[in-house]
Amino acid sequence: MVTRTVDLRSDTVTKPTAAMRTAMANADVDDDVLGYDPTTRRLETEMARITGKEAALFVPSGTMGNLICVLTHCQIRGSEVILGDSCHIHIYENGGISTIGGVHPRTVKNNEDGTMDIGQIEAAIRDPRFELCYPTTRLICLENSHAHSGGRCLSPEYIDQVGELAKKYGLKLHIDGARIFNASVALRVPVHRLVQAADSVSVCLSKGIGAPVGTVIVGSESFIARARILRKTLGGGMRQVGVLCAAALTALQENVGKLEGDHKKAKTLADGLNKIKGLKVDIDSVETNIVYCDILESSNITETKLCKMLEGHGILVLPEGPFRIRFVLHHQITESDVQYALSCIQLAVSGIPGKRHGN
Amino acid sequence: MVTRTVDLRSDTVTKPTAAMRTAMANADVDDDVLGYDPTTRRLETEMARITGKEAALFVPSGTMGNLICVLTHCQIRGSEVILGDSCHIHIYENGGISTIGGVHPRTVKNNEDGTMDIGQIEAAIRDPRFELCYPTTRLICLENSHAHSGGRCLSPEYIDQVGELAKKYGLKLHIDGARIFNASVALRVPVHRLVQAADSVSVCLSKGIGAPVGTVIVGSESFIARARILRKTLGGGMRQVGVLCAAALTALQENVGKLEGDHKKAKTLADGLNKIKGLKVDIDSVETNIVYCDILESSNITETKLCKMLEGHGILVLPEGPFRIRFVLHHQITESDVQYALSCIQLAVSGIPGKRHGN
Amino acid sequence: MVTRTVDLRSDTVTKPTAAMRTAMANADVDDDVLGYDPTTRRLETEMARITGKEAALFVPSGTMGNLICVLTHCQIRGSEVILGDSCHIHIYENGGISTIGGVHPRTVKNNEDGTMDIGQIEAAIRDPRFELCYPTTRLICLENSHAHSGGRCLSPEYIDQVGELAKKYGLKLHIDGARIFNASVALRVPVHRLVQAADSVSVCLSKGIGAPVGTVIVGSESFIARARILRKTLGGGMRQVGVLCAAALTALQENVGKLEGDHKKAKTLADGLNKIKGLKVDIDSVETNIVYCDILESSNITETKLCKMLEGHGILVLPEGPFRIRFVLHHQITESDVQYALSCIQLAVSGIPGKRHGN
Amino acid sequence: MVTRTVDLRSDTVTKPTAAMRTAMANADVDDDVLGYDPTTRRLETEMARITGKEAALFVPSGTMGNLICVLTHCQIRGSEVILGDSCHIHIYENGGISTIGGVHPRTVKNNEDGTMDIGQIEAAIRDPRFELCYPTTRLICLENSHAHSGGRCLSPEYIDQVGELAKKYGLKLHIDGARIFNASVALRVPVHRLVQAADSVSVCLSKGIGAPVGTVIVGSESFIARARILRKTLGGGMRQVGVLCAAALTALQENVGKLEGDHKKAKTLADGLNKIKGLKVDIDSVETNIVYCDILESSNITETKLCKMLEGHGILVLPEGPFRIRFVLHHQITESDVQYALSCIQLAVSGIPGKRHGN
Repeated sequence: MVTRTVDLRSDTVTKPTAAMRTAMANADVDDDVLGYDPTTRRLETEMARITGKEAALFVPSGTMGNLICVLTHCQIRGSEVILGDSCHIHIYENGGISTIGGVHPRTVKNNEDGTMDIGQIEAAIRDPRFELCYPTTRLICLENSHAHSGGRCLSPEYIDQVGELAKKYGLKLHIDGARIFNASVALRVPVHRLVQAADSVSVCLSKGIGAPVGTVIVGSESFIARARILRKTLGGGMRQVGVLCAAALTALQENVGKLEGDHKKAKTLADGLNKIKGLKVDIDSVETNIVYCDILESSNITETKLCKMLEGHGILVLPEGPFRIRFVLHHQITESDVQYALSCIQLAVSGIPGKRHGN
Repeated sequence: MVTRTVDLRSDTVTKPTAAMRTAMANADVDDDVLGYDPTTRRLETEMARITGKEAALFVPSGTMGNLICVLTHCQIRGSEVILGDSCHIHIYENGGISTIGGVHPRTVKNNEDGTMDIGQIEAAIRDPRFELCYPTTRLICLENSHAHSGGRCLSPEYIDQVGELAKKYGLKLHIDGARIFNASVALRVPVHRLVQAADSVSVCLSKGIGAPVGTVIVGSESFIARARILRKTLGGGMRQVGVLCAAALTALQENVGKLEGDHKKAKTLADGLNKIKGLKVDIDSVETNIVYCDILESSNITETKLCKMLEGHGILVLPEGPFRIRFVLHHQITESDVQYALSCIQLAVSGIPGKRHGN
Repeated sequence: MVTRTVDLRSDTVTKPTAAMRTAMANADVDDDVLGYDPTTRRLETEMARITGKEAALFVPSGTMGNLICVLTHCQIRGSEVILGDSCHIHIYENGGISTIGGVHPRTVKNNEDGTMDIGQIEAAIRDPRFELCYPTTRLICLENSHAHSGGRCLSPEYIDQVGELAKKYGLKLHIDGARIFNASVALRVPVHRLVQAADSVSVCLSKGIGAPVGTVIVGSESFIARARILRKTLGGGMRQVGVLCAAALTALQENVGKLEGDHKKAKTLADGLNKIKGLKVDIDSVETNIVYCDILESSNITETKLCKMLEGHGILVLPEGPFRIRFVLHHQITESDVQYALSCIQLAVSGIPGKRHGN
Repeated sequence: MVTRTVDLRSDTVTKPTAAMRTAMANADVDDDVLGYDPTTRRLETEMARITGKEAALFVPSGTMGNLICVLTHCQIRGSEVILGDSCHIHIYENGGISTIGGVHPRTVKNNEDGTMDIGQIEAAIRDPRFELCYPTTRLICLENSHAHSGGRCLSPEYIDQVGELAKKYGLKLHIDGARIFNASVALRVPVHRLVQAADSVSVCLSKGIGAPVGTVIVGSESFIARARILRKTLGGGMRQVGVLCAAALTALQENVGKLEGDHKKAKTLADGLNKIKGLKVDIDSVETNIVYCDILESSNITETKLCKMLEGHGILVLPEGPFRIRFVLHHQITESDVQYALSCIQLAVSGIPGKRHGN
């Protein structure tokens, strides 16, 4: 019977560590909706410091973080946001900025490295002379690292260029920094430098950082004050939420330093996958903790089938479009897990089933 | 120096108990967005059982609970909801059902006991023959206990009548049961009987029940399946949220039994307030854990002033409209706290300041 | 065979006169979406003059006029509008301000004369200190004459008081002036004086004024500039619409002077109805061109039945709630029509059917 | 002094003919909001016949036509529509489907001929298995002829393919047929055949057809019934609107037969432009009444400058993006106007100013 499981579906699947559990159990808390929770204040202050912004706000999820930021920048009816055509906000957040917020998205093609061409962004900005039939561009969104391009990183130089463009046209810049710590570590650039040009950033703490729950958004004092009201409207205001923030503070201490290891494990996995006949990874694109692996036609197997076979071996992964599967590394995956996973993948691709029932 | 604080602002201010903290520290968790968190499943199953509904969903707050329920019943553009003119959804939830959800509210006057006249509800239902210029009524909302009427309870007979009306017109019935356990205890009617006629209920666990965070909504399987998608859209999906659910499960065990005591303390407080010259409480209206206290004109003091003076004595309360203040009892207020609070209130009304600086 | 029809359903049913038809045939027109239609410019200038406002905009309907005005004042997400609980915007316009515009309505009871108590309006204004859970009040709406109170008129003094209240709290004031000319004539107060305190007014030209189509909204230059964009968004921008505006200009010349006669005919009708056994009209409430007539219980007939019987006599009217029917006078109803209608109504109430088939 | 003006900005600028004016003056009308206007009924019946659909509805503009159709197909919150990245709905209609309707757009690249690759459309359809984080695809939109590609036509075979794809996935198909008559004439395929696969079509009558105002949307009986309610909500319901419909009926009789001539004049203009040094037209792309003309770098003139210089000669055109201008032919442009325009354009490009002041 197979008993070993290696969960590579996402870096959201990590379990809280003993230290986080202790922190939750001992957290000093109060009513955060009324604004008095000391641990939440502490986490928010810390995240404002790390990102170099004036203020911060804890929210239940990355989706709410992005939703609040986009809607807070786009308070006025008739707003348009420019964003990448494969970015998380556009593809994986239920279209909430439109269906809940009435904001019109204008997409620009995401290049393979997660950037959008500066010229194309500029071309997408609406000319105010035609305001009669155009929505009003108010915001540009970037994502760093960019999940759909396999976790590749936007450089500070690129972000600064987009920031200058935004300034030139009186627009705001939001960065979906769900994995900004990964980008920071991979680029060896501090987070505050990476987001220097941004008016707001959404930073997830329950991905690579490993906290059980939560995202923090940062921006100016006045931005966060408006965001706080919208958080209440959406129902993201929570009472003694300091228990979660205590875990997040611990996670920040414990896990930022482990991200470099996650990236190394991703490289190891990528190299190993590339050696398996029938699979192919673009090694250069593996910059952080995500590995996209293409299934070659010759292997004669679909992504759905392969995921299921791997599940039979106790290796959990997610399909990422046709003939592509995704692996995500995190601090609860060991080097040994990677080697074990590789051996199982070799078996699965060779058509040898595992002993577990896939569901 | 004043050192004793009695916090009567709300039943949301309770701190997690030692047992809840232990439960959080030991919670068995997984990724609840992916649908695998066992502790969350356990809480949802328990709440479905208590309310007698098919399915349940944990959400971050009462506001999100109500928002999701109203929007899930009103999926189609052009929907109208009938609700009380002083109910929490209409007054205290940022108008989110309209500003975020595009649902049109039609209010009916709330009587002093929190009910709306059945005839007035029926008159507010839109005649489908005039659909050309009418929105479509799709939902009726009740609140039990009804906060703005001082925590008074709707009887099962009344709710059943509203439920029959809803059925007759093909409408749904939602109950904002933020304090449904208080109503259940006060009326000596089980929760499942109280909400029998409802298609959905939103039950808060961080009010009288004392959990640090969270509300559970309940309804049919298909309702909860749709609600789950909307929770994701709003950003209420959380990862290893079982840590919060563990605390909530403990709170259910520990605190439902204490609600009767809270109601008794409310009566004691009400009696005491009534004996203070310049204050007046309608004793009969104190059915649960909320006490509304009117400041008589003769006392020559505004509600804002009185709240501030009380703060100087370490007694925290909130103003509730002109010349009215609100006290809310909960399991972390003792009989002795009530007596102490009464003595401080007597001093404050007499114009004797406390030693603490109000903010 | 009955051949005579008296259409008292609404003042929207008038047919264009010969002069209006000639005006349409000869109108000087251009593309009004591009902003060049001279006849539309002329009508807008004239309406700005009449109402004493800086600028004006022609829109297809009263519903669009109100929708654009409310949404233009409430551009920012999270806005609330205070309005009467029986006003046209709240009851008869599909809830569009919420379902299309995301604006949250807060109703105040309309008195029998169409006013709302100033104190109740003030009490409904949201306290900005509680912005965390309150929407933001941005607008107060009045309706003059007030259709649902039987076409009664708001005095300039009352409107000024509401205007002062709005100013005091930094709110805007919109007047739904669908029948503002009727109010002006009845009160013997010029339109510009009646709407002096208003930031915007919506004036219908296809009701008492008798134009085939159209409403004009008025306000400041900047308000109308924003309104023009929203008109385009909603699809209310029309090309050579000067043909309609030409008819409206003629209607203004022809029919404002006839409104006094409409009011007189309404009084005559009301007096006559009051003499019919089984019917009852509150004569004092008949201030303009609308007559509400109650059907007494003794007559043993519903409003639906009576409308149908009257249709058999060629008298067209609309039901207005239980045991109440509505008559609206206009320039294409003669004194003789009124007398004829009264005789038919007498027959119908007596149970004598007409010879036409009701549909 | 220059006195001759040739207005090539758009086919929306045509003035009503004498016959249309007579038709307006004599139109048999009634209250169309109440549903009784006979001329409107006649136009709607005729358009239903032409397009081969069950029912039709007159609306004030093409923008409202598209808005109503998209929103009527996407009644349920959380809907997504697939449409071309340069289509009119996405670019020129203020983003209304999102900002007013809360519908999320998903764009697919428009090829040079106005099509979208079938494979790319299919790839953009959301997988219902991921409904937790995806909006729900409900609609595909095509535009025929496609304005932004220079008025090129979609073939019935292509549309049928898209229709089959829509059916396969349970989606609806809407065609923005603002210039469907142009496509029909150019392809020599009847309109009803062209839109056979569509669930709704929006047909503009104030473009090539030359009516002063109006668009008609068509679809099934139940679709149009829902659309009628939404038209009222948006404020597009108009009273004696038969006057406009009478002009539109005349326009249909007078001008459909002239479209072929418009296309011929477009070819003539395109040929002539191509002979002017510094300009370039892709002749093959001129399939209907629109001519896109590129300004070569060698000519050293921007599109804004050229438009202004042409205005000095009395030739009115609109810029269409960088170094590109747009000419639109219609029935009030003669062959002689085309030749005159060409001679003026030759002068302007040569740097010889006209005598009129551009604005």
